[in-house]
Amino acid sequence: MQIAGEMLIGQAAVKGSAGQMKATDPARNIEIEPAFGMATAADLQRACELAAQAFDSYRETALEKRAQFLEQVAQNILDLGPQLIERAMQESGLPQARLEGERGRTVNQLRLFAKVVRDGLFLGATLDSALPERVPPRSDLRMRKIGVGPVAVFGASNFPLAFSVAGGDTASALAAGCPVVVKAHPAHLGTSELVGKAIQKAVADCGLHEGVFSLVIGDVQIGGDLVAHPAIKAVGFTGSRGGGLALVRIAQARKEPIPVYAEMASINPVFLLPGALKTGAARIAQGFADSLTMGSGQFCTNPGLLVALEGPELNEFAAAAAAAVQAKPSTTMLTPGIHQSYEAGVGKLSALDKVELLAQGGAGSTACAAQPHLYSTDVETFLATPALEDENFGPSSVLVRCRTAADLRRVAEHVEGQLTSTVHATADDREIAAGLLPALERKAGRILFNGFPTGVEVAHAMVHGGPFPSTSDPRTTSVGATAIDRFLRPVCYQDAPEWALPSTLANDNPQKVPRVIDGTIQPGA
Amino acid sequence: MQIAGEMLIGQAAVKGSAGQMKATDPARNIEIEPAFGMATAADLQRACELAAQAFDSYRETALEKRAQFLEQVAQNILDLGPQLIERAMQESGLPQARLEGERGRTVNQLRLFAKVVRDGLFLGATLDSALPERVPPRSDLRMRKIGVGPVAVFGASNFPLAFSVAGGDTASALAAGCPVVVKAHPAHLGTSELVGKAIQKAVADCGLHEGVFSLVIGDVQIGGDLVAHPAIKAVGFTGSRGGGLALVRIAQARKEPIPVYAEMASINPVFLLPGALKTGAARIAQGFADSLTMGSGQFCTNPGLLVALEGPELNEFAAAAAAAVQAKPSTTMLTPGIHQSYEAGVGKLSALDKVELLAQGGAGSTACAAQPHLYSTDVETFLATPALEDENFGPSSVLVRCRTAADLRRVAEHVEGQLTSTVHATADDREIAAGLLPALERKAGRILFNGFPTGVEVAHAMVHGGPFPSTSDPRTTSVGATAIDRFLRPVCYQDAPEWALPSTLANDNPQKVPRVIDGTIQPGA
Repeated sequence: MQIAGEMLIGQAAVKGSAGQMKATDPARNIEIEPAFGMATAADLQRACELAAQAFDSYRETALEKRAQFLEQVAQNILDLGPQLIERAMQESGLPQARLEGERGRTVNQLRLFAKVVRDGLFLGATLDSALPERVPPRSDLRMRKIGVGPVAVFGASNFPLAFSVAGGDTASALAAGCPVVVKAHPAHLGTSELVGKAIQKAVADCGLHEGVFSLVIGDVQIGGDLVAHPAIKAVGFTGSRGGGLALVRIAQARKEPIPVYAEMASINPVFLLPGALKTGAARIAQGFADSLTMGSGQFCTNPGLLVALEGPELNEFAAAAAAAVQAKPSTTMLTPGIHQSYEAGVGKLSALDKVELLAQGGAGSTACAAQPHLYSTDVETFLATPALEDENFGPSSVLVRCRTAADLRRVAEHVEGQLTSTVHATADDREIAAGLLPALERKAGRILFNGFPTGVEVAHAMVHGGPFPSTSDPRTTSVGATAIDRFLRPVCYQDAPEWALPSTLANDNPQKVPRVIDGTIQPGA
Repeated sequence: MQIAGEMLIGQAAVKGSAGQMKATDPARNIEIEPAFGMATAADLQRACELAAQAFDSYRETALEKRAQFLEQVAQNILDLGPQLIERAMQESGLPQARLEGERGRTVNQLRLFAKVVRDGLFLGATLDSALPERVPPRSDLRMRKIGVGPVAVFGASNFPLAFSVAGGDTASALAAGCPVVVKAHPAHLGTSELVGKAIQKAVADCGLHEGVFSLVIGDVQIGGDLVAHPAIKAVGFTGSRGGGLALVRIAQARKEPIPVYAEMASINPVFLLPGALKTGAARIAQGFADSLTMGSGQFCTNPGLLVALEGPELNEFAAAAAAAVQAKPSTTMLTPGIHQSYEAGVGKLSALDKVELLAQGGAGSTACAAQPHLYSTDVETFLATPALEDENFGPSSVLVRCRTAADLRRVAEHVEGQLTSTVHATADDREIAAGLLPALERKAGRILFNGFPTGVEVAHAMVHGGPFPSTSDPRTTSVGATAIDRFLRPVCYQDAPEWALPSTLANDNPQKVPRVIDGTIQPGA
């Protein structure tokens, strides 16, 4: 398929006329053809208008039909074949195996949401019987959740497939019954066009209203205008704290404020308790170094903070971790901008008082290569130095040495909200761990034991979210089945005649959805 | 029980020293003894600190114990006896039967949440089995929802019991496992103290941490400081648009922004379709007048807008509605301030061009008596006059005369977000109704058929919420079982050893909560 440098507005392919942009090959720091035309205000208006027009019919698609649409999107992405992987490699600097794995994740995510849609539990269907004899009589009340309306999605640079045009935000919004307008990430424009065309084709394949999906191309201004557009009712974003907060401000300043689900900054503390280190400091150190450098450290759940108690087992761990990090090569980062930020970040860390550089990985050979860094400091310095808590996006981490279990708790209470917190503990560490867990729960969306936080499983029980600033809304997740909840709102129908009832609330439950009837959950099938 | 003019900070009763305030008897426009001391910054700090301290233990209370606590609060409110009703009558101007009914609603609401807690569906407990043989292996993932943290609750003036100190916000936050700090509404300080003491006693009766509940007294500044306090993690509010938006701004400006659930302004359009009017214009008119004037029109769901098609049946309805409104007496409003606003509102409406006064109720005899008002206008005037869409809190409504079904749809698309929309329709009106329903669904949280929106049932399927500006967050409800969802956030435990797992996620499910296991819902009991 020819990559044409076009936006997708409903079923049309449109070359934007408000300037041009090109993707960059970060390994060589050169631009990649073709040039992409940027959206005019009229292009954006058309995409949002179509989405608004599509909403009434799309949200009432039968669950089976909506599930088939999500599966068709998955199939159409697979049908793109090797061209998608090749273009994504060129635009992101990520290796082939990683991108093939990411494609599998993207496709499985769409299929999981197809299952979620078929199951129908997300509807929260709830029926309370009328009580005509009661004084006063109780009406017949039936509730279901519907989509909030058209959703704006911003692709992330670090997952050009799984968190981008057909990523988790798009999949969960489409599953919820919301049309989607994606703003393509400038770092992978060609990848975005290819995946966008797969979705656009699925819309036609399934006979849906063309406004169900559009893909616009543009700069920060177009992104802001998209969030400000009255047709848009929610926003999904994965990226930097600054970028996320800018969108929140725009969304709050609207005449009708709307929710923004921004997944932003997290340093993902890992607590290494003494019993666990005794059972295998070297093994844990290797696991840490692998997790730190995976994807050039460009994961939201990268382990950027290690916290441990002074002692011989910590010394053993530190030496092994330093050796493991030293053995890691430098690898290409996603964009020149991200690379510059990382270099600035390690420069800042290296210049801090009482912060020691424990290890550096191998020097880089490509243009945007990131050299892994591991630092060490003491607990008092950590607590007194806000810069040590800033996310440094890339393969950089800080080991905080504590003297007492109380120090561990001080660190747990001190850090900001996180996507994840991790505890390495054996039964011997139970007392210390029990002292940490309440704080970890208050501060993070996912608590791991004896593992590392990179690798976010797409599953029913996953939580990829957490208190501010890890996200702008800790009540939700952006990965896993319940991500659909972000794009729903409840509607109650009181004394509705049968002809006005949505079928999921009808007496005979033709779509066999689970329902809470007079307070008791009834499985649907 | 002596009303002492005190705040309740944990188990202490404290006379605030930052100035004094008194409640007002609105029927006579005189102050009521005693004076209440207002909170100092130190008082507020102490209440919030205690709430933060209570959170770790309170959120881990066994479901049965938490349910018993809610039931104890209900019992302790009943045990206050007639003193509560007498004081509430004096402070609100509401009649005895209404307040006794409201007490019943308040107690039933607490008991409903006790059931919701025992059932455990709100936890969203979800388990995904480990897949050790898969490549790569899948971890064991278990998710549950926990309370977001201490919640600030602002009582509403119009329901001194059901939407105040022990109202829906408090009940749902306590049910979610969140400590609560209530700011008493200045209009019913004595009622607040009495109810507060019932909750305070229940905390002691049940052996909970004293920080689970506090009640502070103060002005707008103290309310803002409460929302800004770092220990507070969410806010529940029912009141004016201005008041709600002020709290949203404070919450958004925090270092850690937090959600505000503000239930604000709604005019609750009622569409009267021709078939329905033909079957009983006079009956519908009487139902409308009763709903309009109930509680002096001081309901969030008051029917402030009627929309109908020109024709003989509308003429019949208008005449009957005018007669029914004329027959209604004036009744005392809640506060002198609310009464002044209402008077200003009807003054503004009466002065509008092309807006006709159809009927006025009887003249008032008490100080803050509101005279019911019914206006009439044509659709073009309505669409061109924003003032006709402003909520005029009190017994005032506007009838909009349309010429075509398309006009009805224009009104449905034109109005802002609403708590409710109502359709009076028979099977003959089906086509017109079907044309309206998609817009009504996009604009309102509850859609009623052939009834009136006042009277919000406390039930599982109720939605008392809706798009902005009816609330600040359309994804939720402030009445009904799912109001608990507002104060929860999910946490995932990955590969947790048995000793670290919350009991609701343990293999043997000792609390018998419903759980989604590998994607399938399993009822608990």
